[in-house]
Amino acid sequence: MTTDKARFITLEGGEGAGKTTLARRLTEALAAAGRPVLRTREPGGAPGAEALRALMLHGTVNWDPVAEAMLMFAARREHLAKTIRPALEAGIWVVCDRFADSTLAYQCYGHGLDAAVWRKLADVALDGFAPDATLVLDLPPEAGMARALTRGLPDRFERLGAAFHARVHEGFRAIAVAEPHRCTLLDAAQPPEAVFAAASVALHSRLGLAL
Amino acid sequence: MTTDKARFITLEGGEGAGKTTLARRLTEALAAAGRPVLRTREPGGAPGAEALRALMLHGTVNWDPVAEAMLMFAARREHLAKTIRPALEAGIWVVCDRFADSTLAYQCYGHGLDAAVWRKLADVALDGFAPDATLVLDLPPEAGMARALTRGLPDRFERLGAAFHARVHEGFRAIAVAEPHRCTLLDAAQPPEAVFAAASVALHSRLGLAL
Repeated sequence: MTTDKARFITLEGGEGAGKTTLARRLTEALAAAGRPVLRTREPGGAPGAEALRALMLHGTVNWDPVAEAMLMFAARREHLAKTIRPALEAGIWVVCDRFADSTLAYQCYGHGLDAAVWRKLADVALDGFAPDATLVLDLPPEAGMARALTRGLPDRFERLGAAFHARVHEGFRAIAVAEPHRCTLLDAAQPPEAVFAAASVALHSRLGLAL
Repeated sequence: MTTDKARFITLEGGEGAGKTTLARRLTEALAAAGRPVLRTREPGGAPGAEALRALMLHGTVNWDPVAEAMLMFAARREHLAKTIRPALEAGIWVVCDRFADSTLAYQCYGHGLDAAVWRKLADVALDGFAPDATLVLDLPPEAGMARALTRGLPDRFERLGAAFHARVHEGFRAIAVAEPHRCTLLDAAQPPEAVFAAASVALHSRLGLAL
């Protein structure tokens, strides 16, 4: 058993894959199992990172792609320094909706940014820090977009078109395949209860966590 | 003579060293010599970079040092992509008040950030781009601070204390010594006309520019 130490769990996947629903369920289950737990999300999760989120997602600037990746990692560094690391050090589990994999999937696979830029920025911002387990919610992009659009006004990521989201989808699958020691690919076309059950199995197997 | 091509000239130095005054004089002299010229400054110089400047200089967040350096270079990348490079490609000379050397002097020499972080971020953001000439205005920090304080409300950089500004001053001197092919150290305790005259000599010698 390795459940004594607080762990950092990230949820990844495209629009509408069910990350927020699964994050909420996992957080509730961890709390019900007696573990202090914080649910957070990116970009954001700390005051400075939230200010950057507003600039990136709702501002009027069409950022240079390298500048945008730098902002994503600056927000991530701030989130890590101010929220994630202090929580883990205080024994609080952290469930995070999106992390560094999303920048690789969206900026590199989706927009064509050189993955070497992502690696250099991850190296500077995270300095070896990585999630203990990552659940990648795998959903065909058409299904995900349909779900996302029912939520109302799409933000800029949701306006990028089918080919873009297909590349992002392939990116997430490639990340899961490349890092099997960290990532579990979950079939997100299933009902939420089935996705949660599959996530619980994965976390039990990876972290010895019984939910 | 190498004056056919538009050049990128940066002015560096501590608070109150006279960068803004010299930038204005150089811009006027370049224009009077018939060269199209843009005067700009960092952090800022493009809409996204100005939004980041506001977050960094006037916001309430006490940024993590690595996150802050990433924001500085994100703003710089945006400035380079949207303002500096398009101007140079259009044949417009660019005179810039602060550039990458300021991040090295303030964040690394001043605040103790690892210079390896600066190098990695400069590598990502600038990808080999560098000023054609840099004029480093050298002024003892006490004299610079006294000048800066007469301008009114000090911003956060101006509230950091004498020991900090002494380290920044030494940093700028070290940068000038380390890169003699690019940097000229100018005695900024002289009257503005003498500083301008020394700058003109340096630019004539380095760029073949007759002002």
